[in-house]
Parts: sequence; C-alpha cells; structure tokens
Amino acid sequence: MRLAAEVPQQYVVQHVQGLEQQAFTFPVNQVSSVWRSAAAFLAGCAFTIAGLAMHFRPKSQPIEPFSMMSVAPAVDIGAKDLPSHFGKDTDAGCLRRRFESMLRKGQEKICAAIEKCDGEGKFVTDAWVREGGGGGISRVLANGKVWEKAGVGLSVIYGNMPSETINAARARQANYAKDLPAGEKVPFFACGLSCVMHPRNPHCPTMHFNYRYFETEAGDWWFAGGTDITPAYLDEEDMKHFHGVYKKVCDKHDPEFYAKYKKWADEYFLIRHRGETRGLGGIFFDDLNDRDPMTIFSFSEECLDNVVPAYVPIIEKHKNDPFTPDQKRWQLIRRGRYVEFNLVYDRGTIFGLKTGLGRMETIMMTLPEFARWEYDNRPEPGSEEEKAMEAFKNPRDWV
Amino acid sequence: MRLAAEVPQQYVVQHVQGLEQQAFTFPVNQVSSVWRSAAAFLAGCAFTIAGLAMHFRPKSQPIEPFSMMSVAPAVDIGAKDLPSHFGKDTDAGCLRRRFESMLRKGQEKICAAIEKCDGEGKFVTDAWVREGGGGGISRVLANGKVWEKAGVGLSVIYGNMPSETINAARARQANYAKDLPAGEKVPFFACGLSCVMHPRNPHCPTMHFNYRYFETEAGDWWFAGGTDITPAYLDEEDMKHFHGVYKKVCDKHDPEFYAKYKKWADEYFLIRHRGETRGLGGIFFDDLNDRDPMTIFSFSEECLDNVVPAYVPIIEKHKNDPFTPDQKRWQLIRRGRYVEFNLVYDRGTIFGLKTGLGRMETIMMTLPEFARWEYDNRPEPGSEEEKAMEAFKNPRDWV
Repeated sequence: MRLAAEVPQQYVVQHVQGLEQQAFTFPVNQVSSVWRSAAAFLAGCAFTIAGLAMHFRPKSQPIEPFSMMSVAPAVDIGAKDLPSHFGKDTDAGCLRRRFESMLRKGQEKICAAIEKCDGEGKFVTDAWVREGGGGGISRVLANGKVWEKAGVGLSVIYGNMPSETINAARARQANYAKDLPAGEKVPFFACGLSCVMHPRNPHCPTMHFNYRYFETEAGDWWFAGGTDITPAYLDEEDMKHFHGVYKKVCDKHDPEFYAKYKKWADEYFLIRHRGETRGLGGIFFDDLNDRDPMTIFSFSEECLDNVVPAYVPIIEKHKNDPFTPDQKRWQLIRRGRYVEFNLVYDRGTIFGLKTGLGRMETIMMTLPEFARWEYDNRPEPGSEEEKAMEAFKNPRDWV
Repeated sequence: MRLAAEVPQQYVVQHVQGLEQQAFTFPVNQVSSVWRSAAAFLAGCAFTIAGLAMHFRPKSQPIEPFSMMSVAPAVDIGAKDLPSHFGKDTDAGCLRRRFESMLRKGQEKICAAIEKCDGEGKFVTDAWVREGGGGGISRVLANGKVWEKAGVGLSVIYGNMPSETINAARARQANYAKDLPAGEKVPFFACGLSCVMHPRNPHCPTMHFNYRYFETEAGDWWFAGGTDITPAYLDEEDMKHFHGVYKKVCDKHDPEFYAKYKKWADEYFLIRHRGETRGLGGIFFDDLNDRDPMTIFSFSEECLDNVVPAYVPIIEKHKNDPFTPDQKRWQLIRRGRYVEFNLVYDRGTIFGLKTGLGRMETIMMTLPEFARWEYDNRPEPGSEEEKAMEAFKNPRDWV
C-alpha cells in the first residue's frame, strides 16, 4: 500500500486487515478507538446498519457491494433468540426491544412533523433485514420545499467483539462489569437512530441528532446520543429556545447533565483546523451507564421526544424569511464547513469511509446538497456573518 | 482529548505532541509517514511554506496565527548561507537555487498562459519570507471567466529533521546515503511548486500539478512530482492529448517512466471509499534519485514546461462549449468527489489539517468554489455521465 495516503492509510491497513483476516482482532491498544469508531459509525452518520453489519461477516468472505433486502417497515428487524442482559431478546419487554421500539416511534413522529412543516417533500423509506440478525429503516426526504435534504435512519446490529475490545471500552469508564480472557468473542447488540436535516433558507438551521444503546453479553451496557444545531446566522432567541428545551430535559434527570453535555457537544463538534465549531452545539453524551438503565432509557426517550419541539418552531419561524444572494452564499460557505467537519473529524464518517465497508450513499447522506469554498473569505466587520463567526469561535452559554 | 474524533485524533495527538514538545521526535515506526506527509504537505496542496515552516519553530513556542511578511515577488526567498549537497546554497549555480529558479520561471509562465486563456481573470500575488529562511509566492486567480479558482504556489523550506526520520525515509528506498546516530538533527531543504485549477465549464477539466526537490545535509536528496487531470466528462481525444504529452516527456528520459508513473497516479488519486478515481490520472512520482540529479532536474523541468501544452489546448477547445444545467449539476457532483479525495486522502491536506499548523485558506484553496452531493445519484445507463464514471472506475490506457 506504499502509494496510498500515509496518514489515514496506517489506520486503514491495520484495521481493514484485522477485519478481513480475523474479524475484529485489532491490536489491543487500538481497540478502544475501533470500538468507539464502530459505535460512532452506527450512531453519528449511518442511516443503515449495513456498514457495521458487514464487519461481522464470516472470516475470508470477500468484501462485496452492499445489498439490501427490502422489507416493509412494519416487519420486525433484529429479533434474535439470544440471551439479553435485561430480559430475553425476543421478549418485547426487554430493554433492547423497548429501545428499538422507542426509536421507531420517534422516527415516525419526527418524519411526520418534518413532512408537515415542509408541506411538499415526502420521506422515501428503505427498510431491510440482515440474515445474521438486525436490520434498518432509512427514511430520506430529498428536494423538499423547506429542506434540501433530510434523513432519519434506524439501525439494529448484532455482532461479535473480542474481549480485548470490551476491556478497552471498560478502561474508558471503570464500571463495566466482568473480566474475560483475551481472545474470547463477546456477542453484542447495538441500536440507534440518527438524523441530519439541511434546510434551504439560510435563516433556517441544520439539525443533527443520534440516540443509541449498546449491550454486550459480557454484561456491559451503555447509552449515548445528542442533538445539535448548525445555523448560518445567529438568532439568540432561537439558541435560547433550542438549548432551553434540552436544558429542561437534562435538568429533569440530573442537574449536572446540561452543563456537562453542552460542553461535550462544543468540544466534539469543533473544526480544529479552523478553530471554530461546526454550529452552535446542543448536547452530546457517551458511555452513560452510571444509574439504573431504565432511568437513562427515559432520558434518551425524552431527548428524542424533544427534537421536534426544539427544532421545528425555529424552522416555522424562519422558513419564509426573505434572504439575499449574499446570505445564501454565506450559508453555502458554512455548509462547506459542515463538509469539512464530517469528512475530516466525524468519528462515524471516518470509520465508514476508511474501512470502505459501509454503504457510501448512506454515509454521504449527511453532507449538504451544496457547499462552497471561497479563497480567504472573511466576514465584514460588524456584519451578521461576523456575529455568527464570533459565536462559532467562542462557544457561549445560551441559557 | 477524550472527546475528539478517535480515528484521526490518535494521529494528531502523537504528532502534534511530538512537534510541540521536542520538534520532530516522532516514534521511529511512524517517521516515514510523517516525513512523507510533511513532504506532501509542501507538495500536494500547500501554496505557502508557512505550514511546514511552523513545524520547525523553537521548542515551547506557542502556536500562533499564521503571519506573512509581504515582499515583492522579485525578492530572493530562501537564500541561506548553508552548505548544500550540490554546491553552496548562496551560489546561484547550486542545485537548490537552480531548482527554485526553474520553478519561479515555471510559475510565471503558467500564470501568464492561464490569464491569456481566461481573458478576464488576473492572478493576485502574495509573497513572503520567513525569518528562519525560506519563503513563498502564492498566485491566486478567483472569479475568472474560464476558471472559478486557480492557484499556483511556490514554497521554499529550511528545517531540521531527526535522523530517525531520515533513516525511515532511507528504508523506503535503499540508496539514501549515510547512517546517523538516533536523535541527531539533520537540516533539510525543500522547494516545490504546486497548483490546482478549477474551470467553470463542465466540459473543461480541472488540473493539478506539483514538482518538488528535497535535500538533507546528511547527503540525501530526491525529486518528486506529477501532473493529473480531472474532467467531469470523458473526451478520449483530450485524454490522448494530455497523456500523450506526458508520455512523450517520460519516454525521452526513461522508457519505463510513463507506465510506472501513470500507474502511480491512478493508484494515488483513488477515492477508495467510492472505488473510483478522482479524475483520469496523469503521472505521479516520488523518491526519484536513482540517476544523476541534473538528469532528474531536467525531467522535472520538462514536466513543468509541459503543463501548458498538455492542459491549455483542452481548455481552449472546450471553454466556449454550450452546456445544460444537468451537465453543470454533474460537474458539481464530480467536484464533490474532488472534495472527498482532498479532505479524506490527500497526504498534504490531511497533514496540514490534522496538525492545524498550516495556513488554512491556502490549504483549502485546492477545493472547488462549488460542490454538490445528491443522495444515491446514479448516471443513466448509456449516458455521457455513465461513460465518464466507467473511466473513473476502471483506469485505462490512453496512449
């Protein structure tokens, strides 16, 4: 692989070889990274399970083009008769199935609200199951009146992780459960719903969320997720509203959640090479398992339930705002920054692209329809663009 | 750095720490990667030396915003009274200065030809020197009639590399010279000219080139470079012309050059996650030092001299071609692929972005003004778009 780009290639070679030759036999000092990246691949960008699903294919099976088995969205995805940490997996009352069911309801509700607000665009649905267990439902709205691109994807994954991977995950946070001998494979379950929505009007912000749950048969489990907003222009009232909704949800569950997860979002969504954030944040959390799982389930559910009240009123407020060509231009420049973040930093996107195992169109769904790069563009002093840039450069408190 | 994207972060943390704490004390097994990335940073994307130059700042100096000391382009950049492998550095007849002088002439000639072909756009020039030695001349044409963005950048760098880096470079190719004790710093010189040009008309291809020369005081030296073309539509005659020009140049120097360097370009400019090339190739070479340096100098010079005859006739032929909105749309989708390659794989871009030490506007200059991503766009069977896609998916021989 001498001719390939060295910086990413180091990563690719090690990991793709691991995947191809022994299915997840990564060097121990890298498993944490892989595990988190795999998790993020599910969570942050993938509107399908296929990418991750392929990582668990039998040894020496060649990498083949992605294929889908379309099913009606009503068909059960992911039902496997496996023992589960919190109840039998085929039992509708177990945590896994309840989380999946909660996400499916959330997906339907959010898509319905977006269609109603858009007035013209309709979501197209792709649903499929995997032979090995798991499946996905992707819902994509293209060419809407309000949104140029919106996607909401549910994924359910059954896979096997070597115990080193689990132990590395434990090292991140001390309270994961058992110790297993090296080399032992641990079946895991992962389920997530993720979304990116890019509106047309430069006064309407882009929104992204994902909520996900992981469980291994070694007894580990955790929740992760977040919702964040990316306007091109700063409307302080909008930000007070958006952050206010999530602060209220957080405060109901833990007085420390909002400050902690707001900061986490500001740090995660940083375009480091620009020294500016992708947008104006929201909340972001990972490895959450320090309390009763049903309590965290409820927190995730409420976060998801609040996507519509946090986001749609902002769109309703601005969707008919007049705008100038220069404002559209600025929006496209900010979309360019969105592309930079997603292609250079987003954990899930990077993992999907570098391993080359995901369904590309699905990963690239997170990118805007249009983006623009101008040489050395600098907002005019005192302009609205500069005001927004100030906020990207210096994350502030909104509530 | 727990919250940062894990995949790239591993790289960043190791290398930025190395840079900040000890200036190039990378783990030995990674120096090859770093060295090549640094080289590529100069060569592949940077229109300024500042990014690399800053890597060599004194220990514990904070990272500061990039600053330029503007000078007239006629002022000597890079003249340092240091011993040079092929003649004294301040001697205009030494290889370093001759290479720099050759590139400066090439830059002027190419910019003049592009301005003439464009008819309206003019290159704006930024030139500067570094206190520590070296400097750069960036020439940027924005908003031309034919080209939306064109940049041609000359860079001269003086720096210090630890001997491990040099030895790792030697391992790539056996004939680098001396053995040095670990930890010893070796001054090096690098000089390069790089260029990306994005025309407006979808029938006019994008073109990229870079030519560069490296020399260390340990006695190592090598040349690198290449020119490649990225059309949105396939015009076989154009490709025969472009590749034909470079085959002729290659054949004059070595009957094996063209086949070898054409293949290298096809392999390097691969968008792996798409399974397609960025464009339709050209030539690409690195580590070239297996013959008399003046012979390779002449080869590089001829390659650079042939940028205009290889590229401009294609633009002249197509610059007034009529085109439909759908053809423009396809061009923008291909521009999206250009962005994907540059942000995900290009050695120089990645190195510049991940270390965060370059001048961002300069690195991002390689990106097109506009790019587009559509969900699951597939060319119509039998269409011109599909014909082009076939060529991106299956690199073929043009001459």
